[in-house]
Amino acid sequence: MATTPPTRSPELRKDPVTNQWVIFSPARAKRPSDFKSKSPENPNNNSSSCPFCIGNEHQCAPEIFRVPPDPNWKLRVIENLYPALSRKLDHPNGQNDDSSSELSGLGWVVAGFGFHDVVIETPVHSVQLSDLDPSEIGDVLIAYKRRIEQIKQFDSIKYIQVFKNHGASAGASMSHSHSQMLSLPIVPPSVSTRLNSMKEHFNRTGKCSLCQVQSKDLLINETSRFFSIAPYASSFPFEIWIIPRDHSSHFDELDNKKAVDLGGLLKLIVKKMALQLNNPPFNFMIHTSPIQVTDSELPYSHWFLQIIPQLTGVGGFELGSGCYINPVFPDDAAKILRELNVPI
Amino acid sequence: MATTPPTRSPELRKDPVTNQWVIFSPARAKRPSDFKSKSPENPNNNSSSCPFCIGNEHQCAPEIFRVPPDPNWKLRVIENLYPALSRKLDHPNGQNDDSSSELSGLGWVVAGFGFHDVVIETPVHSVQLSDLDPSEIGDVLIAYKRRIEQIKQFDSIKYIQVFKNHGASAGASMSHSHSQMLSLPIVPPSVSTRLNSMKEHFNRTGKCSLCQVQSKDLLINETSRFFSIAPYASSFPFEIWIIPRDHSSHFDELDNKKAVDLGGLLKLIVKKMALQLNNPPFNFMIHTSPIQVTDSELPYSHWFLQIIPQLTGVGGFELGSGCYINPVFPDDAAKILRELNVPI
Repeated sequence: MATTPPTRSPELRKDPVTNQWVIFSPARAKRPSDFKSKSPENPNNNSSSCPFCIGNEHQCAPEIFRVPPDPNWKLRVIENLYPALSRKLDHPNGQNDDSSSELSGLGWVVAGFGFHDVVIETPVHSVQLSDLDPSEIGDVLIAYKRRIEQIKQFDSIKYIQVFKNHGASAGASMSHSHSQMLSLPIVPPSVSTRLNSMKEHFNRTGKCSLCQVQSKDLLINETSRFFSIAPYASSFPFEIWIIPRDHSSHFDELDNKKAVDLGGLLKLIVKKMALQLNNPPFNFMIHTSPIQVTDSELPYSHWFLQIIPQLTGVGGFELGSGCYINPVFPDDAAKILRELNVPI
Repeated sequence: MATTPPTRSPELRKDPVTNQWVIFSPARAKRPSDFKSKSPENPNNNSSSCPFCIGNEHQCAPEIFRVPPDPNWKLRVIENLYPALSRKLDHPNGQNDDSSSELSGLGWVVAGFGFHDVVIETPVHSVQLSDLDPSEIGDVLIAYKRRIEQIKQFDSIKYIQVFKNHGASAGASMSHSHSQMLSLPIVPPSVSTRLNSMKEHFNRTGKCSLCQVQSKDLLINETSRFFSIAPYASSFPFEIWIIPRDHSSHFDELDNKKAVDLGGLLKLIVKKMALQLNNPPFNFMIHTSPIQVTDSELPYSHWFLQIIPQLTGVGGFELGSGCYINPVFPDDAAKILRELNVPI
């Protein structure tokens, strides 16, 4: 006979990293283990017209680099054919000061200079990121790092957002496995908010908020160099963070060994998420520090990778308040994912 | 022969009210006038099983009030059957200080006390908000005001978010026209950010940012008491703000005359949006001041109503950075909506 689990009372939690309030509201939910994607991703195996497939390179925007550098490539970094920002605009390269100007009363404006790149993660249409070996996923991560090191040379670029959209309803317009890098002439507000929040925690406790976060109730899986958790104030059900164990401010401090280690953990976590949640569309985002971060900010800024499976929609409450309502407590999500066995 | 319109260069804009950066990226878009919803709302006329329909009141959670107070009601305010917050929890009513407590290193927590109410806008299933007369929409707005005045008596409630989800993909779980009010024991971060941003503008210019915003290029429609604009740094294509012309910090300062005036403008704007954009799902949110706002904050805090048609999805970039990419410049959106004629 099915029994109803005891219902936990709703509570609001504020995360010391994101500074976001989240409403945990289990009374609205089915049991945490019953959460499944209603729009699972069906990989599209029709590669005949896909410009990201090997052999169709001529259909793409210009290439930035490929690995290895020969016709039989395993990954390519290319320009986005429909870039959100323009690499051709006049820009104040060489100036470190803020180039924004104010229109009378209406707001601030900055020319849309920036880079919008695409990382094609595999030459084969039907292969997803989590099908790759840990070392191959490591190669993708090292490609991000290599491209960041190139873009860092442009003084007018302030922040590089690395992200992946998996599945059409998570924003992917191409089904061939890829990720994106958008290099911005501003520091986004959520990055400033995160840095301020981590600074406040550091000033109060003397510790980096992400070095300190290792709670065994929130732990999913760990390796010698990384650990994955359901964050204390997860905005979304089954949200996952993968955090480097050693304090590190910038993603591009990653070395080859750590990249393979992270590749293995990312593969495991995405496989678990697909199995438990019915292959949901998902996004991952790398949260790193602004390029021109100051030395005094380094002790409390700690990069991490955030994974959000798409299980619930947002409505007027979330758009209006910036608060999310999450029906699954993170310790419940962590326990389910921790105890799940997947064939790797 | 179709001609391609000249493409504007991308630019980033920061709004003085929301403090959000938005990337305007017209190169990615079709022409502004070609934007249409891909998932238009088809009103569901099957009212036989709808608890919000007149005659089915017994299927609902308890009623708070109805207008008029007799069996032949025109609108009802009821409790949400699946509330995000609990009105039954112990709460520190009567205490004005912050009741949050810190867990060691993990974050902050507040008991989930609050009110989650539903405003049924009409007794008839097939009637949408924009089908009502201006005075009937005014009655809905006055019902929000009346409920806010009740909830303000609870000292532990800090902010009341009024919002409407129209259409399943905009978050509406019921097709019968309704809106919601979520009363929170915290001030949401986006409200604090907005107040800080408006304060900064006030300190720099001596003016309220919303009193000052009247740009004729951004204007859509206006009445003697309200005006509607496409905001300078719209996060979403065809985002619309309706702003009271006279400085007013709190939505519940609305009187009956202003409510009818706002009802007429809201009706016109929603009709225009439906006609131009193929009846899109949409959200509206009322952005007002925290209940316990101080006198010194009043000169720069100005309430407004924000309408967001659902035309584009969000992906990893938006989730990661908090910045939105908008393919439609607001002056283009404003011109299209301003010049559109709709039968009222």
